[in-house]
Amino acid sequence: MDTLNLALWQCPYAPGTAEALARLDATAARARAQGAALLVCPEMSLTGYQIGSDGVAALAEPADGPLAQAVAAIAQRHGIAIVYGYPEHNAPGEKPYNAAQCITADGQRVANYRKTHLFGDIDRAQFSPGDAAPAVFAWNGWQLGLLVCYDIEFPEPARGLALQGADAILVPTANMIAFDEVQRVLLPARALENRVFVAYANACGQEGETTYGGLSTVCGPTGSVQAQGGRNEELLLVALSHGDLRPARDTSPLRDRRTDLYDPLSR
Amino acid sequence: MDTLNLALWQCPYAPGTAEALARLDATAARARAQGAALLVCPEMSLTGYQIGSDGVAALAEPADGPLAQAVAAIAQRHGIAIVYGYPEHNAPGEKPYNAAQCITADGQRVANYRKTHLFGDIDRAQFSPGDAAPAVFAWNGWQLGLLVCYDIEFPEPARGLALQGADAILVPTANMIAFDEVQRVLLPARALENRVFVAYANACGQEGETTYGGLSTVCGPTGSVQAQGGRNEELLLVALSHGDLRPARDTSPLRDRRTDLYDPLSR
Repeated sequence: MDTLNLALWQCPYAPGTAEALARLDATAARARAQGAALLVCPEMSLTGYQIGSDGVAALAEPADGPLAQAVAAIAQRHGIAIVYGYPEHNAPGEKPYNAAQCITADGQRVANYRKTHLFGDIDRAQFSPGDAAPAVFAWNGWQLGLLVCYDIEFPEPARGLALQGADAILVPTANMIAFDEVQRVLLPARALENRVFVAYANACGQEGETTYGGLSTVCGPTGSVQAQGGRNEELLLVALSHGDLRPARDTSPLRDRRTDLYDPLSR
Repeated sequence: MDTLNLALWQCPYAPGTAEALARLDATAARARAQGAALLVCPEMSLTGYQIGSDGVAALAEPADGPLAQAVAAIAQRHGIAIVYGYPEHNAPGEKPYNAAQCITADGQRVANYRKTHLFGDIDRAQFSPGDAAPAVFAWNGWQLGLLVCYDIEFPEPARGLALQGADAILVPTANMIAFDEVQRVLLPARALENRVFVAYANACGQEGETTYGGLSTVCGPTGSVQAQGGRNEELLLVALSHGDLRPARDTSPLRDRRTDLYDPLSR
């Protein structure tokens, strides 16, 4: 389809997964009623993010685990695709991954990505880093990619998705209020330099001592901010158009890259 | 030194190299009088940028050619280092390079860089692409790197300089008025994502049919805009401080890169 009707759910973490799923169910209904075909939720959407290594270990599941099945049921009930974050089982004895998954409106799991760039002590205490670069997947005529939070602060993973042909990069995140420069400075650049849409769905509110900054943002392929939330819970609706990608790509720098000079970047 | 007193000369192209050198001489005097130790000029500073392949061929010179000697004399006369752009001789029969050079206050040539990312038909008609990634050089206690114009729109060359330890990236440029998003969107991101200063000295005014956009910009390592020119000729004075680099680097993402996953970026 030429237009992707996207919803970003900027929300505080719920007290427990049952409550989180109930809120997701209500939000998916609301997003669909407003015309959205795809709903993006924050990092570790249903469990909370800073839940400690014991909490992560207790709630981690395989990509087709109970949370995934509950999300699939919600997606099917309301006829909307859902991107959400969750702690994914790793090998026995290894810390789980900080993963994001896309489940379509017919309940199919079509993409799973494990955060590759871990952020500080919080991530390192709770998670293992993903061992695969992000991969583009096709959905409804769009080429999509998933990243998680800190990943988008690096030019490299978004570049990798753009080189695979991504139209839009969807980023569940839990960015603290002290780091607004990610939304203000980095997201427009990732979109512009790669001629892609970037959709960044942030948490808001408190989790323990931490305040999340909201300001969930959708940037277009010219670096413009197409939508941005405030500090509080909000459902952002944005229509992404292939028609905006085409002229931006007429002047795409991707074809002018000097791959012969970039080897030092991977050493 | 802890502080680098930098001047950016945002200027229109002069009618001819003699006039360009006279203006540079006056500007270097003024910059030094205002305390600057290093003056950065636009791309192809002394010859004009869109001078055609014949014009480039006629004015091209080796890195120690007559223009370089004249710039060295100006640098020594006023006691100020100068970064300027010029067309550099290539092998016989090959188009010249679009180069930038740094000449210190004692007249020494300490760095020369050949633009690696050529922009559209203008660059391709006039120049050969540089065949070496940019390299950091030391100057007065600072680690500096040179890029030219379009190079900074790519994350890769700035990243390469940051990985070599660059403190500041100096960018002679000739960016047209239609492309203000480079200054607005990309420069702050390059500075923030690499924890470096970025100083972008643009042309202004008319050259044939082309209007250059000015808005010469210095960004700090938190992505802040420390100085920005308007649309007309201007000498920007900015003090860069090592003291701003240190706290920014305490949270540098450079140490969290996943080089094991970046090989596809150089293929």
